[in-house]
Amino acid sequence: MASLPAGPEIERLVQLLAKLPGLGPRSARRAALALLKKREGLLEPLAIAMRDAANAIRVCEICGNLDTASPCSLCRDTRRDAHILCVVEDVADLWALERAGVFRGKYHVLGGALSALDGVTPERLNVSALLSRVVSGVEEVILAMNATVEGQTTAHYLMDALQPSGVKVTRLAHGVPVGGELDYLDEGTLFAAFKARREL
Amino acid sequence: MASLPAGPEIERLVQLLAKLPGLGPRSARRAALALLKKREGLLEPLAIAMRDAANAIRVCEICGNLDTASPCSLCRDTRRDAHILCVVEDVADLWALERAGVFRGKYHVLGGALSALDGVTPERLNVSALLSRVVSGVEEVILAMNATVEGQTTAHYLMDALQPSGVKVTRLAHGVPVGGELDYLDEGTLFAAFKARREL
Repeated sequence: MASLPAGPEIERLVQLLAKLPGLGPRSARRAALALLKKREGLLEPLAIAMRDAANAIRVCEICGNLDTASPCSLCRDTRRDAHILCVVEDVADLWALERAGVFRGKYHVLGGALSALDGVTPERLNVSALLSRVVSGVEEVILAMNATVEGQTTAHYLMDALQPSGVKVTRLAHGVPVGGELDYLDEGTLFAAFKARREL
Repeated sequence: MASLPAGPEIERLVQLLAKLPGLGPRSARRAALALLKKREGLLEPLAIAMRDAANAIRVCEICGNLDTASPCSLCRDTRRDAHILCVVEDVADLWALERAGVFRGKYHVLGGALSALDGVTPERLNVSALLSRVVSGVEEVILAMNATVEGQTTAHYLMDALQPSGVKVTRLAHGVPVGGELDYLDEGTLFAAFKARREL
């Protein structure tokens, strides 16, 4: 990134903002200017919110979710079905499923996906806790990994690891996304959608 | 935004991040998670950088630029040609021109563009300082407004306001952007490009 015609403090702010996912160099510069212009309305409240969130955040000792309490609010919620576990790679995936409101069981957050390239081994994921949880009364484990190579590798690994427990293991369906146009879909998705076609 | 399955502190962090330009609800959630996961590597340095930048920032008393000193580094730079002033709407525009390295004169930052809709009158912009600067030895004023309705309204207003001073007033050329394909350009740009065509 070329040096800005401003002081090193502003340069540093832009550099750190550019590390946030979704912000490139250009949007980091715009975000830095917005922060500096709205000092009382945005910069100071955001600094306080960052400190408060950093102080409040806990990793749930049961499922690995991020919340302000451990066990997290989902693990404490007795209205949720403890017989079904939905395994996700990341907290962001848990949030996405909660937004969709499709699942009323409990979650388990792995904290990533297996990746030989990035050196992510099963030991670095929240796997052994999952195997311990499955022993006590869980009837179904839904593997809700991303439909990526890493996600599917992780799903296969977990399927093997869960087999001795005898628990029912399922995975999310692959197919044409709702609202998706065939013309824009990749071969892999079309192949999966054909293979899993259903009679009407 | 639907409530997150996390505490109010995290919710508040996401809400404030979503106020940054370029971050929607989804990217604000991803940014919040990235901050909380990389507490020592990202959240704490960013909090410090925000505080440092907020403390260091000054509005240049001459040109209205944001810098860590006033007069700003560009106004202090004696190698820059003080006979040419480039008027921009915003600091971001100044940064863009500096990145391009096309201009070696001095700048003047208006702090916005005239907008009847948003109630931005000439009094709310850095206009009177511009008129005072022009008196003392400035030979050319380049109006580098955005090619929007507000930007062009502002340019027309400034042209009228600068006329009594007798200074030469120019504006940036409009036309086909370099690398642009005609098929993707709007009628206004094509019209401007035809009107300003040059003999080869």
